[in-house]
Amino acid sequence: MSAKGKVLLAYSGGLDTSTILAWLIDEGYDVVAFMANVGQIEDFEAARTKAIKCGAKDFILEDMRREFIEELIYPAVQVNAIYEDVYLLGTSLARPVIARGMIESAAKTGCQYVAHGCTGKGNDQVRFELAFYGLKPDIKVIAPWRDASFYNRFAGRSALLEYAASKGIPVAQTKAKPWSTDENAMHCSYEAGVLEDPDHTPPEDMWGLIKSPEKAPDTPEQITITFTKGLPTKVKIQSSGKEVTDSVEVFDTLNLLAREHGIGRVDIVENRLLGLKSRGCYETPAGTILRTAHISLEGLVMDKELRKLRDSFLSRSFSQQLYDGLYYSPECEFVRSAIPASQKNVNGDVRLKLYKGNTIVEGRSSSETLYSADAASMDVVEGFDVEAAGGFIATSSIRLKAHGLNQTRKGLGGVDKQSAHAGGK
Amino acid sequence: MSAKGKVLLAYSGGLDTSTILAWLIDEGYDVVAFMANVGQIEDFEAARTKAIKCGAKDFILEDMRREFIEELIYPAVQVNAIYEDVYLLGTSLARPVIARGMIESAAKTGCQYVAHGCTGKGNDQVRFELAFYGLKPDIKVIAPWRDASFYNRFAGRSALLEYAASKGIPVAQTKAKPWSTDENAMHCSYEAGVLEDPDHTPPEDMWGLIKSPEKAPDTPEQITITFTKGLPTKVKIQSSGKEVTDSVEVFDTLNLLAREHGIGRVDIVENRLLGLKSRGCYETPAGTILRTAHISLEGLVMDKELRKLRDSFLSRSFSQQLYDGLYYSPECEFVRSAIPASQKNVNGDVRLKLYKGNTIVEGRSSSETLYSADAASMDVVEGFDVEAAGGFIATSSIRLKAHGLNQTRKGLGGVDKQSAHAGGK
Amino acid sequence: MSAKGKVLLAYSGGLDTSTILAWLIDEGYDVVAFMANVGQIEDFEAARTKAIKCGAKDFILEDMRREFIEELIYPAVQVNAIYEDVYLLGTSLARPVIARGMIESAAKTGCQYVAHGCTGKGNDQVRFELAFYGLKPDIKVIAPWRDASFYNRFAGRSALLEYAASKGIPVAQTKAKPWSTDENAMHCSYEAGVLEDPDHTPPEDMWGLIKSPEKAPDTPEQITITFTKGLPTKVKIQSSGKEVTDSVEVFDTLNLLAREHGIGRVDIVENRLLGLKSRGCYETPAGTILRTAHISLEGLVMDKELRKLRDSFLSRSFSQQLYDGLYYSPECEFVRSAIPASQKNVNGDVRLKLYKGNTIVEGRSSSETLYSADAASMDVVEGFDVEAAGGFIATSSIRLKAHGLNQTRKGLGGVDKQSAHAGGK
Amino acid sequence: MSAKGKVLLAYSGGLDTSTILAWLIDEGYDVVAFMANVGQIEDFEAARTKAIKCGAKDFILEDMRREFIEELIYPAVQVNAIYEDVYLLGTSLARPVIARGMIESAAKTGCQYVAHGCTGKGNDQVRFELAFYGLKPDIKVIAPWRDASFYNRFAGRSALLEYAASKGIPVAQTKAKPWSTDENAMHCSYEAGVLEDPDHTPPEDMWGLIKSPEKAPDTPEQITITFTKGLPTKVKIQSSGKEVTDSVEVFDTLNLLAREHGIGRVDIVENRLLGLKSRGCYETPAGTILRTAHISLEGLVMDKELRKLRDSFLSRSFSQQLYDGLYYSPECEFVRSAIPASQKNVNGDVRLKLYKGNTIVEGRSSSETLYSADAASMDVVEGFDVEAAGGFIATSSIRLKAHGLNQTRKGLGGVDKQSAHAGGK
Repeated sequence: MSAKGKVLLAYSGGLDTSTILAWLIDEGYDVVAFMANVGQIEDFEAARTKAIKCGAKDFILEDMRREFIEELIYPAVQVNAIYEDVYLLGTSLARPVIARGMIESAAKTGCQYVAHGCTGKGNDQVRFELAFYGLKPDIKVIAPWRDASFYNRFAGRSALLEYAASKGIPVAQTKAKPWSTDENAMHCSYEAGVLEDPDHTPPEDMWGLIKSPEKAPDTPEQITITFTKGLPTKVKIQSSGKEVTDSVEVFDTLNLLAREHGIGRVDIVENRLLGLKSRGCYETPAGTILRTAHISLEGLVMDKELRKLRDSFLSRSFSQQLYDGLYYSPECEFVRSAIPASQKNVNGDVRLKLYKGNTIVEGRSSSETLYSADAASMDVVEGFDVEAAGGFIATSSIRLKAHGLNQTRKGLGGVDKQSAHAGGK
Repeated sequence: MSAKGKVLLAYSGGLDTSTILAWLIDEGYDVVAFMANVGQIEDFEAARTKAIKCGAKDFILEDMRREFIEELIYPAVQVNAIYEDVYLLGTSLARPVIARGMIESAAKTGCQYVAHGCTGKGNDQVRFELAFYGLKPDIKVIAPWRDASFYNRFAGRSALLEYAASKGIPVAQTKAKPWSTDENAMHCSYEAGVLEDPDHTPPEDMWGLIKSPEKAPDTPEQITITFTKGLPTKVKIQSSGKEVTDSVEVFDTLNLLAREHGIGRVDIVENRLLGLKSRGCYETPAGTILRTAHISLEGLVMDKELRKLRDSFLSRSFSQQLYDGLYYSPECEFVRSAIPASQKNVNGDVRLKLYKGNTIVEGRSSSETLYSADAASMDVVEGFDVEAAGGFIATSSIRLKAHGLNQTRKGLGGVDKQSAHAGGK
Repeated sequence: MSAKGKVLLAYSGGLDTSTILAWLIDEGYDVVAFMANVGQIEDFEAARTKAIKCGAKDFILEDMRREFIEELIYPAVQVNAIYEDVYLLGTSLARPVIARGMIESAAKTGCQYVAHGCTGKGNDQVRFELAFYGLKPDIKVIAPWRDASFYNRFAGRSALLEYAASKGIPVAQTKAKPWSTDENAMHCSYEAGVLEDPDHTPPEDMWGLIKSPEKAPDTPEQITITFTKGLPTKVKIQSSGKEVTDSVEVFDTLNLLAREHGIGRVDIVENRLLGLKSRGCYETPAGTILRTAHISLEGLVMDKELRKLRDSFLSRSFSQQLYDGLYYSPECEFVRSAIPASQKNVNGDVRLKLYKGNTIVEGRSSSETLYSADAASMDVVEGFDVEAAGGFIATSSIRLKAHGLNQTRKGLGGVDKQSAHAGGK
Repeated sequence: MSAKGKVLLAYSGGLDTSTILAWLIDEGYDVVAFMANVGQIEDFEAARTKAIKCGAKDFILEDMRREFIEELIYPAVQVNAIYEDVYLLGTSLARPVIARGMIESAAKTGCQYVAHGCTGKGNDQVRFELAFYGLKPDIKVIAPWRDASFYNRFAGRSALLEYAASKGIPVAQTKAKPWSTDENAMHCSYEAGVLEDPDHTPPEDMWGLIKSPEKAPDTPEQITITFTKGLPTKVKIQSSGKEVTDSVEVFDTLNLLAREHGIGRVDIVENRLLGLKSRGCYETPAGTILRTAHISLEGLVMDKELRKLRDSFLSRSFSQQLYDGLYYSPECEFVRSAIPASQKNVNGDVRLKLYKGNTIVEGRSSSETLYSADAASMDVVEGFDVEAAGGFIATSSIRLKAHGLNQTRKGLGGVDKQSAHAGGK
């Protein structure tokens, strides 16, 4: 074994992590390259070959698609997770699963260190490392892009290329795109490069996953999603009659449909976790459809006050925790433990129309509906005591009247004051 | 004056409120009919004629469009108000303004009573009456649809028609639509009738305001909205070069654009305030565009922690208060007083593409941006101390490590347990 | 069976519910009197005799002390439940247990109705009835104090006395106290009468449970409370060496100690649930000690972020739900289901000194402490990377600097502005 | 001027900051010593003499008592600020004022740097530095206890003493106490040393400010505090008839009373902001009385829903922000801007009895009370429509019944299930 010990490196097959691999060996470490299949399009065999060529002692490929979908994405669907009203957390959700795969593989291969190629300004370094420490408090982490001896040496692409040449590391001949991407089963993200100007419209050829609404078919597709305890357990496609029920197949099917129909692109300036703002473009096909569908079904079956609590407690907390890399934290364990109790009744079907970027709810039904057409009907007297409504209003108005009287006493309230407040009227 | 006194009636010109008008006179009241112009399409002169024909002593028409937009809709834009993730509160926002118009007109015309034709199961009775009591605690309210002597007598449309005939009240010959609507500058709502089955897809001919995405033009429109302190102060349409800056014109312009491009339809089963669930379809053209644009600009200029506070405090509270009819309450006055301080920096432009139901952000800019391309850039070392990020991670991980160690001590934590928890792996 | 059916009446043995009992029989019902032992001082046999004498078909006494303490009070201890910063919810917590006893007894005795003697302005009518409906949605409820035929007839004590005399109902010869009380294992409450003036100091002879701090012993007592998963599982009294471990005994022991040492009196003007304010005085002996002890132990063992979530989610929600009579609601079921996960680590001992109204924490210890003396020590360099603190500050200050610069740009920020804002300086 | 420039040092007169002063000069800086009078007991002239003797170019003493009380403490009183249910934030509140004094003095004296003697593990380094950067984003900060060249050289008291001797710095002959303290007008804190064992009872001679309840007088004192817009504007002492109205005098008077009557000691294990837990003992005399009094008055005059919003929004946020050193942040500016609107009606008197550690509310009154004795009275039928209460209950129970029926349908709910859930019954 090398003098300094053994490192498990999160390897992407690209120039950066290949350089890091070779550099770690130069620094005196043995290196095991690790790659997680979380649904990205990737030539895994080519990556294995390249890693070994760079000097890796071993290459580990873990297929983590199912646990990514079932353990991370599906709870996010259950709580309608969203960050800053726009971002569906595709990258954030993948990190805990990859980090766990790394810690497990590090244990199996006897690595004392884990290393990653995340930049020193971004969110992912935080997400990976907080996950590492939460899972294995005594793990040692190497982050070359925060290590002056690395980042000073490799500042700029030419230094990387030169080093790669010197080490015989093959470099893809394709021209680097003027942005960077991260892809998995949930989404593909685009940031940096030309996107750093938040007023620069994303070029159409950037979007790699989802058709533009303009190019999506003129004919809508209709589908039905069945939820069981808040989880999507069946998708039926009307045009073909096809049905799928396996969790991964359900997600993959929705991904294909949404990509075809232009659903799931967003463009946001978001607050990163280290205090900077950052511009990101995201394509989240299945996640976008599922969010609309799940919210719609909850309208039918979830109690009003439970929904308020779930929204302000579970949804906001879970979204923030995932964004902030806190999946393996006491507070996220707590939040996750509370999700199932909120989803007991979220059973039923949602019918949707997919058309050029739109996910249109066409109907929803459930055997556990809390909705009563008779009670709600304006045309039916039965099922609701309208005089009780008067009692509700009378009691609710007590404190408003007390406030109104107090305002009047102080010469502050009443119509005149309110109008004056209106300004300019 | 009549024996019982004078009533100001919220009059719509329809069969219900015309019947109520005549019935109030039968009951011994003098009646003044009141109508607010809050942007709905309406033949106000026909309504005046009909009210007088029904026996009203007077007919008052108040043009409240500007105060509706400036005092109610614009604060909702500033806080990104939304109810249950879907409903933009079009009806809820109109009620406080109409109620204020009524209380003011009641004072001017010497009415001791106000009356409305809202049903006894719905939200609007609550919204109107809580507003009345908040503005004038000693006002007396008549709600015929909660009065047994009225609702027992007029149960069903035929009883209303018969009474109308007996009173010489003209009835529109158009066949009643199988749903009911409420329209104002913010939105048009549809509920009841065939919509009471939440799995019944809304018929295409129901949607009266907004083109369907399918029928919207194949050519997108591009616009720029300028915000000043969170309020839309200019709209520029790229194709025509037209610019508008007056608050009402801005709103009207966005309404026309959204209606043309199929933007702003939703369909929801929502939790009404009296404990029932209800299905509603809403068309909110300008409001939908403004929400997307405002959120996008806030991403650029609003501080992260201020945004969290604003979201959980102002946005949720204001939305719930408006839905619940609590505009004239101590808590809503408090919330409204806090809005401006959150919007001081929300100044800048948002560029949008409108296309078949989609509001696509193409860019945003501001002279008060908190975004720094250099600091955020992955390619630039300057502007951010990457070693500080390591310090942040180290301090943030302290309690996660303590938790991890405690879990391990109890035989609960670590990788194995977490994996086991994953279930089935 | 009587024509109208059978009623289970919550019977207290007092003049009000005895009158209601006789009146229900007059109205044509059969009546079963129900009494719950929730720890109040009461002559249950005398109550039984009196109920039968008043005409009850049966008298049911349920000993519900253990379930009151274990199912209601202990979760309140776990979440540090408190209403409006002062009230420990003694009455609120008893209602769900009593209501459940009533619904169970009504089922066993074939009663179609349940009745109670709560006033029409108070909280308890709401708490009882919402619990009844939550447990048995089709139960029929009789609330005489909201029934005009009852309350008009029995307005004033003399009408009640006259009726009692006419029915041969024995009336206690003791002079009525100028306030009303409610007692159970958790607390004794005082309200109404002379207390209705919120500036009237409660008379010393009102307080029936707890010694005044002035009259409490001059010698403090020291005790140790052991918590297991947030529940008090042992109390040790230092002076006597006595130890108790049974949940009811633990609670009773703490009650005795607190009563002796003047601990647990409060006086509050609170917001009732129907919109009125009300003045109440409460004696909560054991509950006051447990709250202090539990909070102190949580300081040692509970994670910081978990604590924040628990406080804003579980504690506030549970307290409000209990106050509002919503124990048997979807939202309270949800909250209760989340409590245990927050208390897994709340294991350890708290040492307290009880002295003249004060509960003084003298120390706390736990085998699951998250506290590290070495890490926290100002004198030890080990266990904490002080340079990491610098990194934390540097990243945390990024957005504050951006804000400061923006303020300066606008001529708003910086020292001068802040000083000016200070006002008057 | 020295080569490296000029430093404003927060100087305490103790061994640490005297060493830092001399060391900074060794390092090539000119040093100005700064001291803020925030109400601590201190020989300021001795400090000046010592600073000059240590080599300071100048010594600046700023009397900041009034702004500390009016700008920091009083808003904390208005929101009932508290951290983790126990700590009244005495140190946290002083930091923003001292930091502002330093930035202002640095500007006046031409210092490019500010320096402090806070340890590298504690909260105060964060509070000072975030305040510095918020007020003057380009200020340069020197924190010797995070600088390896300093902390490695001065690890341990003997190194400090030796260096002091070499520099002719006078050292107090009093034996160092086995804990450290921080004192200001709001409180005195004790931590470290023997207190690092959280199960070590604080020695009686540690508490320097407040008498122990045991030693407090046997005779209570009665006082009346008058609040205006939530601020204490008058204190009247019953025994002497003395009245004070100036803000500083009010606070000082309450401090004296509380110290005499044993009020305001707490002992807590709290969560520091850098992820560690820490044990602190605090004496907060006036603050403890004011909190009790202010909460009591709010009960009388503050609307129920406004109170909920204020508690969950202003109180929690402000407390956390102050603890975390975020006074000069966008979010705290926002919170502070919202406080006055919540306190408009908080006008009135609170009568208190002070006795051996207890602050006992004896009554409260206000001309703006929202309390109505008639409406609340159980004995009066007027002022409240009891049948409306029935309507409130009926509407509130709608969703509980729907839930109950759904549970029954699923075989989950109802009495039996609830009892079973009770466990062990």
